[in-house]
Amino acid sequence: MPYRDFSLLGATAKLSGLAQRAYDLTRPTALSPARLQSMKASACGFDLLYATERLDEEALAALQQLADEAKLVEQFMVMKKGGVLNRIEGYASEERQVLHTACRDIFSEQPHMPEATAKAKKELEKLRIFLDDLASGKVVNRNKESFTTLVQVGIGGSDLGPRALSLALQAYALPGREARFIANVDPDDTAAVLAGLDLSRSLFVVVSKSGTTLETLTNEELVRAALARAGLEPKEHLLAVTGEGGPMDDASRYLASFYMFDYIGGRYSVTSMVGAVTLGFILGFEALVELLRGAWEMDVTGEKTDIRSNLPLLMAMIGIWNRNFLGYPTCAILPYSQALSRFPAHLQQCDMESNGKSVTRQGKAVTWKTGPIIWGEPGTNGQHAFYQLIHQGTEIIPVEFIGFRRNQRGLDIKVSQTSSQQKLVANMLAQSLALAQGKDDVNPVRRFAGNRPNLVLVAERLTPYQMGALLALYENRIAFQGFCWNINSFDQEGVQLGKVLATKLLHILADANTQIPPASEAKSVEEEMLRQAGML
Amino acid sequence: MPYRDFSLLGATAKLSGLAQRAYDLTRPTALSPARLQSMKASACGFDLLYATERLDEEALAALQQLADEAKLVEQFMVMKKGGVLNRIEGYASEERQVLHTACRDIFSEQPHMPEATAKAKKELEKLRIFLDDLASGKVVNRNKESFTTLVQVGIGGSDLGPRALSLALQAYALPGREARFIANVDPDDTAAVLAGLDLSRSLFVVVSKSGTTLETLTNEELVRAALARAGLEPKEHLLAVTGEGGPMDDASRYLASFYMFDYIGGRYSVTSMVGAVTLGFILGFEALVELLRGAWEMDVTGEKTDIRSNLPLLMAMIGIWNRNFLGYPTCAILPYSQALSRFPAHLQQCDMESNGKSVTRQGKAVTWKTGPIIWGEPGTNGQHAFYQLIHQGTEIIPVEFIGFRRNQRGLDIKVSQTSSQQKLVANMLAQSLALAQGKDDVNPVRRFAGNRPNLVLVAERLTPYQMGALLALYENRIAFQGFCWNINSFDQEGVQLGKVLATKLLHILADANTQIPPASEAKSVEEEMLRQAGML
Repeated sequence: MPYRDFSLLGATAKLSGLAQRAYDLTRPTALSPARLQSMKASACGFDLLYATERLDEEALAALQQLADEAKLVEQFMVMKKGGVLNRIEGYASEERQVLHTACRDIFSEQPHMPEATAKAKKELEKLRIFLDDLASGKVVNRNKESFTTLVQVGIGGSDLGPRALSLALQAYALPGREARFIANVDPDDTAAVLAGLDLSRSLFVVVSKSGTTLETLTNEELVRAALARAGLEPKEHLLAVTGEGGPMDDASRYLASFYMFDYIGGRYSVTSMVGAVTLGFILGFEALVELLRGAWEMDVTGEKTDIRSNLPLLMAMIGIWNRNFLGYPTCAILPYSQALSRFPAHLQQCDMESNGKSVTRQGKAVTWKTGPIIWGEPGTNGQHAFYQLIHQGTEIIPVEFIGFRRNQRGLDIKVSQTSSQQKLVANMLAQSLALAQGKDDVNPVRRFAGNRPNLVLVAERLTPYQMGALLALYENRIAFQGFCWNINSFDQEGVQLGKVLATKLLHILADANTQIPPASEAKSVEEEMLRQAGML
Repeated sequence: MPYRDFSLLGATAKLSGLAQRAYDLTRPTALSPARLQSMKASACGFDLLYATERLDEEALAALQQLADEAKLVEQFMVMKKGGVLNRIEGYASEERQVLHTACRDIFSEQPHMPEATAKAKKELEKLRIFLDDLASGKVVNRNKESFTTLVQVGIGGSDLGPRALSLALQAYALPGREARFIANVDPDDTAAVLAGLDLSRSLFVVVSKSGTTLETLTNEELVRAALARAGLEPKEHLLAVTGEGGPMDDASRYLASFYMFDYIGGRYSVTSMVGAVTLGFILGFEALVELLRGAWEMDVTGEKTDIRSNLPLLMAMIGIWNRNFLGYPTCAILPYSQALSRFPAHLQQCDMESNGKSVTRQGKAVTWKTGPIIWGEPGTNGQHAFYQLIHQGTEIIPVEFIGFRRNQRGLDIKVSQTSSQQKLVANMLAQSLALAQGKDDVNPVRRFAGNRPNLVLVAERLTPYQMGALLALYENRIAFQGFCWNINSFDQEGVQLGKVLATKLLHILADANTQIPPASEAKSVEEEMLRQAGML
């Protein structure tokens, strides 16, 4: 399929014109009940309320045209069917398929990529048996005790998604099961986690596709040393999630190994074994399957060409409207759910690492804006923190609210005739209206300009199914936006330069540690940087 | 003192001109060892390396001129000496002094505000006695057991700072002491925290200056109900931090009360009783005093007029250079220290709630940019997440790195001849250089444009003293920037509209709960919003 540059799509000119007279949310009748009713889309248990975006029917039609011209759904289907979308034409690049959706396609009678889905099923079956063995007492520690804690050792995509989802679903954890996470090469991270553990009843799952990630390998050594100091046999406590046949695929060093595949990028790997081992351990296999089912159903939703029926695509187009036509550089993701407190950090990676690019899939410099800066914290906490700037600052911040009608844990209390859950959701909806409408006042400090675009995603309850659907909603939104911007959302060349320079600095430090005298009198910038920082 | 608008200061025109030819960090010799040596400032154990900012001597001189013209240090002294800086001339406003520095001025022989400092000392002395009573066994639970856990119940300024600093200094916690936090009105937040507690050995400190914060009062009720269900007497487990004489200053309901004062804003209250009770509980009184000493010494540093000797002022001016003259909308704070993982969230509040304003201190609309969007996560984690966009995205993000030469907990390991701590710091410094210098390549995907401005703050070790200094460094930087922009950094009128609308929505829900029929046929936007979200 020939890709076209974003700037060459006919709809972009039309949308630029429409943006000059974007829907004014501050007019007295701008937010009518009729508008609230009509600007709503639903899928997989989620309702998307987008009347508080600066959109009218004409702009929506132009966004549909943009999606059609850029063939976004066709590209999505190419992705699902194994097209080599992780590439740059004419230049050295990863040249890989992009098949995280195949992990979820296990529910299809006719999966798009039968082989990849079969492999995913095989790993799931291995995991099911391993979890059964843990439950039945077949896999226990040397004292015949069950394992209570699973510590995931990984970084980036091997950490953020699994961590965010573990936290999100902690309310459903099996009795006596908990997950912990070690990511940072900062030795205090590992030390703090290890300090709180009963090592004898802990398993560690080391996650690295290549088996060569600096942080992960270093932390694995710290963990092995701690286990040995405690008189335990490391091999009996360590699991690996890694590429088949790679350096970590070694039965002599790990109790069990689960495989991840080249065609699943780290940031899209939550529904592969990268997330499944830990989520399966704390939630049980059935709940894990429900999570995958939610993701799968959202993947199927992504196949619809009408933006009003395709939630990920609609959110992608709204994001592009705000980013490229209204010109806003960031997007805040504000879940009104403490359980989702680390979900924005996961999306920060998934979105910014995917779409923080400046080069097209043909290797040309882009002349349009690509991925925004993604950030956010849960509400209502944020209302007492940074919302001041969102309401009255000099930067306009598009906001995505996420909320649920029911809580997870069943504990609640009525104060002043409403429950805490009602207060939580009422606050979210009030913020949505306040940002959109604004308010005039004789006192200039109490004026709110309004026209702060935002949308609300709301579902019944944050269950494993709903979490899977939410995850895939954002993953697919990100992919649609990357397709539209004609960038490769699946590589991460931007992380290389820092790695190269870090290696250079570490060689200087290693030489200093072993007292090798510096090679020459002339100091390099790298050496001087270390000196000024007091490291030499 | 007559305030002058930012746009009317002579230096702003000069700086606008200089920004057109801002220092190019990508030239081959741009980052010489000599530049690294000269662009360094130090105070209170911190070295600030700023050679990787797009600044030269001429721009620095113009920033000094800007600081002088805007009388920033004079305004800082007015603040410390009790000037009513929380006000808008000619309009209804809070009309308050801004005296968080008085909490730290306890080390001065001649405090700037003797009365406020005496009050701070009095509360500290009450706290010292209370902590002694806990240690000596005078204050125990009904079974004569000591208290092991202190749960802080508060939101915004009564949560973020104390939480960030507790986490930062957890390595120094007294044996058998831990802190937990409840903030969100989301009932799952409270339920999750309560589920992990031995209630009989837990104290709860409820923090609200006004004694009327919706979230905090609601969560206090949940806590009281849980204590009662466990057969405990709530009054024996609850402490209050609140305004003297306010609704929560009630000895019949709390085991002890500590006072906070109107002249200390929530987001600047970490070094008042708002943070001191919890930090004192986990760290002990001596460590708390060390933290205050670090903050005090940084406050004293803030009195110097030379920007090269005044770390908070220098960072303020660098921030203004990036924000107003180079035009960048955000600022990322990236600590290479897992212990500081929640410090960016605290600064997000402190900065964005202070300087996310659009009106001058004379009630006029600003015509210049004010506070940026603040966000960040710890490195090296971020390197495997969002750094792709920082290096190669279409938005330029000024970065502030924070690191330490030694770890806190003493556990480390050498892999490939370097320790984890060396790897951590080397990665931070490498990122600083990489962002500045960039790199060309024949492959366009491997090109790095460079000129990404950043600075590095580095100190020996994250101790209580160093944490206090870091906190005050940022607090004072934020105040200096607000002074320069001629805005009131100490109010938060922008949070009001959301509160008003939330109350409106909650009335509708309360009526629905009690089955009062709607007042009229015509549906309001608020009611329709609730209906579309499935809440009615």
